[in-house]
Amino acid sequence: MVSATSEFTLIDRYFTRATPGAVLGPGDDCALIAPSPGCELAMTTDMLVEGTHFFANAEPGSLGWKSLAVNLSDLAAMGATPRWVLLAGSFPTPDEAWLASFAKGLFELADEYGVNLVGGDTTRGPRNLCLTAIGEIPRGQALRRDGGKPGDDVWVSGRPGLAALGLAELQGKTTLPEAVSSVSLSALNRPQPRLALGIALRGIASAAIDVSDGLLGDLTHILERSACGAEIELSALPALPVGVDVELARQAQLSGGDDYELVFCAPPEHRLRIGEISSQLGLSLTRFGRLIAGDTPRIAVRDTSGNMISINRLGYDHFV
Amino acid sequence: MVSATSEFTLIDRYFTRATPGAVLGPGDDCALIAPSPGCELAMTTDMLVEGTHFFANAEPGSLGWKSLAVNLSDLAAMGATPRWVLLAGSFPTPDEAWLASFAKGLFELADEYGVNLVGGDTTRGPRNLCLTAIGEIPRGQALRRDGGKPGDDVWVSGRPGLAALGLAELQGKTTLPEAVSSVSLSALNRPQPRLALGIALRGIASAAIDVSDGLLGDLTHILERSACGAEIELSALPALPVGVDVELARQAQLSGGDDYELVFCAPPEHRLRIGEISSQLGLSLTRFGRLIAGDTPRIAVRDTSGNMISINRLGYDHFV
Repeated sequence: MVSATSEFTLIDRYFTRATPGAVLGPGDDCALIAPSPGCELAMTTDMLVEGTHFFANAEPGSLGWKSLAVNLSDLAAMGATPRWVLLAGSFPTPDEAWLASFAKGLFELADEYGVNLVGGDTTRGPRNLCLTAIGEIPRGQALRRDGGKPGDDVWVSGRPGLAALGLAELQGKTTLPEAVSSVSLSALNRPQPRLALGIALRGIASAAIDVSDGLLGDLTHILERSACGAEIELSALPALPVGVDVELARQAQLSGGDDYELVFCAPPEHRLRIGEISSQLGLSLTRFGRLIAGDTPRIAVRDTSGNMISINRLGYDHFV
Repeated sequence: MVSATSEFTLIDRYFTRATPGAVLGPGDDCALIAPSPGCELAMTTDMLVEGTHFFANAEPGSLGWKSLAVNLSDLAAMGATPRWVLLAGSFPTPDEAWLASFAKGLFELADEYGVNLVGGDTTRGPRNLCLTAIGEIPRGQALRRDGGKPGDDVWVSGRPGLAALGLAELQGKTTLPEAVSSVSLSALNRPQPRLALGIALRGIASAAIDVSDGLLGDLTHILERSACGAEIELSALPALPVGVDVELARQAQLSGGDDYELVFCAPPEHRLRIGEISSQLGLSLTRFGRLIAGDTPRIAVRDTSGNMISINRLGYDHFV
């Protein structure tokens, strides 16, 4: 009998691959893993909901990639080496073509980093994807949000804001030059978790976070946990894309979500080493401010003319 | 400004408690844990969807309990000691009273077993609860589904079928005697994961699974993975509740879901030890069959008159 259950069982097979990094993969009550001696485990879970985080007509391959990417980005922000992932999903109907494409996108990214999908749960309901990712870090070397100290430099990887520009274009709010459109949609749909950077920053960065809600908003999270303030200079940030409305581009850079670049802090004596890491990874790392003493997690912003300005909107917000 | 986000931030606080068993709890990109030396980790994730797994008007305290219980039951079935849990949830509106009650129910069970809620994600969407639970097991001692051998006894804990009777009453399909109704609704709404039993069965059980889909269906999962068949005797199963339609009660016992008892296999030389475990835990453990050689995962059922019968419906099914 081919029941609805059988269809879901079939679908589970799209997600069942060899798991050489696990003691026991899918098919039992639990997955079993053997953590590496001397390591701590970093664990994160993220839920992506249709209508909130992605459009109903989102290309499933990109969605598969991104569902994993947002979780691996959290591991990157801790300096963890990604190892294992669990996937729970609810789906309105067992649409095999959709799921095959989703699984393909997810495994493309998983295979890039040797991440094993070790277990999960598939059920019926409004489309919802919940991934849990687990990584390893040598004991005591995790990059936390609470280690920043006044005097530390503030850095960001890549070109934050591109994903928000891509979203603005998809929403019909702007038209981007061809070259900008291409990199922006790629940043939005297939973000690259900065895992190699996170690992390279062990012992160097005093604090780190990934830019999921916006550069200033996420920097504020570091300030809150590190109990200090920050000064930043707009002129030091990566150049805005050419041919894009400057106000839109600056807004995207400071407050756009979904970039998954890393913002991190490090003592000035590490500037040379951070430059070397940038070269080794082929990834731009931009120093755009410093931490300062202060009771409130305030960010003082100097504009490109050297004047202090106030910034109202601190981050992208799923719930507004 | 009290934005919708602020409300969600407030709600996150309902789920933020001290996490003495973790290196770092909620509030960073990831939780950090330090696994115990010599242990493997068992990991499981389960998604509960409104309309599929629970009614929209489900009492939130019981739902909080049960959301965690179904995950801890998977750990119990592996013989793991529960340690950490992550919670991702989507909610249509931030209903604080609902969430306070949900959190209370969840922490009642978590506190019973010293489980730390170390992280999570809260977002907007149709109500959906996805928990990931992690436990520890001394290396190589996990109770898997694939270790059963012909000749092993087949056991079940407690009184499987009660939860299905409770559900049948809620659905207006039957009226239960007062005493049966009380224990049945309790089994349905506040199932007790058999964690102490799972731990006690390390080194004794050859295979184990929790009864989430029905006694026969879940036993079949053991047979599939252990590559053998089974013979069971209805007369050896726990007595059916008095005052309930016999056919309904037997159907519930054999095929009812949501009980979260353990079905396990063990060589006959452990019968005495299993009796001692039953006494120590105050939990009935019933031997009702044995594994037999066979190429197909077939269950031969002997009825209470000693005749072989065929069973059609092998398990409760969320998708039918």
